[in-house]
Amino acid sequence: MTTVIDGKNVAASVIQTVKSATAALEKSSGVTTGLAVVIVGDDPASHAYVGSKGRMAKECGFKSVQHTLPAETKQEDLAALVATLNADPSIHGILVQLPLPKPLDSEAIIQSILPEKDVDGLSVVNAGKLATGDLKTGLVSCTPAGAMVFVRRTHGEDLSGLNAVVIGRSNLFGKPMAQLLLNANATVTIAHSRTKNLAEVCRNADILVAAVGRPEMVRADWVKPGATVIDVGINRVAAPERGEGKTRLVGDVAFEEVSAVAGTITPVPGGVGPMTIAMLMANTLIAAHRAAGQTPPQF
Amino acid sequence: MTTVIDGKNVAASVIQTVKSATAALEKSSGVTTGLAVVIVGDDPASHAYVGSKGRMAKECGFKSVQHTLPAETKQEDLAALVATLNADPSIHGILVQLPLPKPLDSEAIIQSILPEKDVDGLSVVNAGKLATGDLKTGLVSCTPAGAMVFVRRTHGEDLSGLNAVVIGRSNLFGKPMAQLLLNANATVTIAHSRTKNLAEVCRNADILVAAVGRPEMVRADWVKPGATVIDVGINRVAAPERGEGKTRLVGDVAFEEVSAVAGTITPVPGGVGPMTIAMLMANTLIAAHRAAGQTPPQF
Repeated sequence: MTTVIDGKNVAASVIQTVKSATAALEKSSGVTTGLAVVIVGDDPASHAYVGSKGRMAKECGFKSVQHTLPAETKQEDLAALVATLNADPSIHGILVQLPLPKPLDSEAIIQSILPEKDVDGLSVVNAGKLATGDLKTGLVSCTPAGAMVFVRRTHGEDLSGLNAVVIGRSNLFGKPMAQLLLNANATVTIAHSRTKNLAEVCRNADILVAAVGRPEMVRADWVKPGATVIDVGINRVAAPERGEGKTRLVGDVAFEEVSAVAGTITPVPGGVGPMTIAMLMANTLIAAHRAAGQTPPQF
Repeated sequence: MTTVIDGKNVAASVIQTVKSATAALEKSSGVTTGLAVVIVGDDPASHAYVGSKGRMAKECGFKSVQHTLPAETKQEDLAALVATLNADPSIHGILVQLPLPKPLDSEAIIQSILPEKDVDGLSVVNAGKLATGDLKTGLVSCTPAGAMVFVRRTHGEDLSGLNAVVIGRSNLFGKPMAQLLLNANATVTIAHSRTKNLAEVCRNADILVAAVGRPEMVRADWVKPGATVIDVGINRVAAPERGEGKTRLVGDVAFEEVSAVAGTITPVPGGVGPMTIAMLMANTLIAAHRAAGQTPPQF
């Protein structure tokens, strides 16, 4: 019997933990967890993302601040805002919504966020901490952190003796995911577009994580029977069966046929997707606990 | 026919490149490459290492500075020295010889070295740069950088389609080595003490790198015929055949039997060992080129 992970459900339980811990932190130390979200320009999709992050932050009991800047904002003014937020003790997490309008240099802005407030986990210092296994002071980017929650709830904390294969080697997902799996004692293989015999490599995986952006690339015969399959791809494909010009979302895994082989699988949509924003809240809570000298909850 | 890599020979060719580029940099921009080595206390082995680094730096044409501090040096005085070296434009590389005598906090000292002068590649910023594939501004720790020179001279720059297996996941070697191999497009597996069926995992490797510290653990039947085997282990074992109480150095690979299977292999001693100090010189030269706004040579 295959278990289909309900990402919305897991995300809701993460949010529940964040809510309780936010209230407990406030009670024990008087610290209200604070998240600042910065958005530049008028991109509707970016505004929608930022809106839902703000709503979720309020739901968690955070102080939620949004800074909306015009598209023609200058680099130095954006940098000055980040510096102000870095110095503000009531703000524990800073998120600058990407992409920034041209010609702003987003890399310089991201790297100027204090690593301990970098709740997106994008700074080179947080990458270095993750790479060297320092999860006690580092912050991990939200999507791999969310995927690891699924892995832990399926296999526990210790993945000793399990083979994990990550397909995809992006800095945003594949590399940090591999480091998290390694840190949990899995034997980890990172496969990618240059890998030979990819299907064979994947068949070796007890935990298979796909993050390549190729619709339904992972087929049933790529999967070891009983394996845990985590699908990080979100691809929009034509769905003529729904009517002319209609589309639907699919992952990197051919869900229907792989479901017949896998032990545990995440759907798309409704799998890893809902976890990203939940882990953003978790990271902000973790940052607030550390700032207050308290031990954050485990997710 | 198995190729046995002569590490001394390769190291000498790296040093030759460093010498020429040091002279060329001085001629073109007036910049003399500068390396500062800091040693605290009287440990004879540490003094021997520092001595050979200083001699090699001079041989390369560097300005070579050694700071010898007493064992009872205070943390703040050592930190002040590092701050002075950070600010000194004639110094491009700073190396603090480890281990530091107790109770000095070596982690704080290492992290206080400017990342662009951290020629040992130990700072969290350099770990993050390597983890995110930024080799243009980062500095890579010397032993994995040296092992990669062997890999490049055997397989070229692009390892697409090759499977690499690294046994060992230390921050000093295993993890950075895996990242370098991945960056060169290999499909990379990181195996370690918790790996199940280690021999089977290793048999899959076109490039097998062992860094576990277990004498002659890798046997002939762990190795794919024709594979490149790089042995980073240095283990001292009893050698009664040389007389009572005598010892000898062996690697993590059973050299004699594996030589019969591998296509290319490094010996111990005389393989990776001599590369570490050569890559320290290379890193210092790279740092000096960057400080002068010039493109460093490739190694």
